[in-house]
Amino acid sequence: MAYFEDLEVGQAAAATHLIEARDIEAFGHAVGDLNPVHFDEAYAATTPFGGRIAHGMLAGGYISALIAGALPGPGSIYKSQTLDFLRAVRIGDELVVRVEITALNEAKAQVTLSTVCTVGRKAMVRGEAVVTAPRRPA
Amino acid sequence: MAYFEDLEVGQAAAATHLIEARDIEAFGHAVGDLNPVHFDEAYAATTPFGGRIAHGMLAGGYISALIAGALPGPGSIYKSQTLDFLRAVRIGDELVVRVEITALNEAKAQVTLSTVCTVGRKAMVRGEAVVTAPRRPA
Repeated sequence: MAYFEDLEVGQAAAATHLIEARDIEAFGHAVGDLNPVHFDEAYAATTPFGGRIAHGMLAGGYISALIAGALPGPGSIYKSQTLDFLRAVRIGDELVVRVEITALNEAKAQVTLSTVCTVGRKAMVRGEAVVTAPRRPA
Repeated sequence: MAYFEDLEVGQAAAATHLIEARDIEAFGHAVGDLNPVHFDEAYAATTPFGGRIAHGMLAGGYISALIAGALPGPGSIYKSQTLDFLRAVRIGDELVVRVEITALNEAKAQVTLSTVCTVGRKAMVRGEAVVTAPRRPA
């Protein structure tokens, strides 16, 4: 974990997720979204996506997990997140989730991070997170 | 499901989730966030939350599921979501997720919805979604 005093603009963390059918299924069951575009390859093939896709919010979950686990890590408190779903994520995609500190608010111990999920050079989901980080004990 | 032509500003849908430990655990495993504030009651009791809390993004997942399942429902495509995490959701909370159409963009078949999760009269998570809805076949 990192204390607010340890953080600097430009610090970044990343994680890679190879998307498997079971990841989509676990997320769908966790949030109650069993839509066939996520679960049924034959149906999904008839949609504009041409095949099964991940729930957009799965990327939101991965962003949240990276913030909670790595930067700023445990003890941080999530205040807000924006998410623009730019492209659909598919089974077999290697999704790279990256968060980078873009601003620090000393008075509020508040951290702003850019949050982007990419596959190869393509941005799939992009947004911004605001969290508070714990201050170093005096 | 609803076609874009069937939608009106003010239409709403809601779902209620009684939050159980297993819901938090399923979501945590699905996104890879096993932080003890979500999983370990003894640890969580020592935090400012005073006990285990749900991942904020679980509410995001419930919002996403309600949009995908009910309004506009299957065939809609998620474009963006904002989430302000106002209060922590706890085991035993009855979380009401409500989405309401606030604007329709005819040219883009685009739907804007307010998205709010409440427990009793308290707003826990608040935001806005933008989705496209399928047009009625000619």
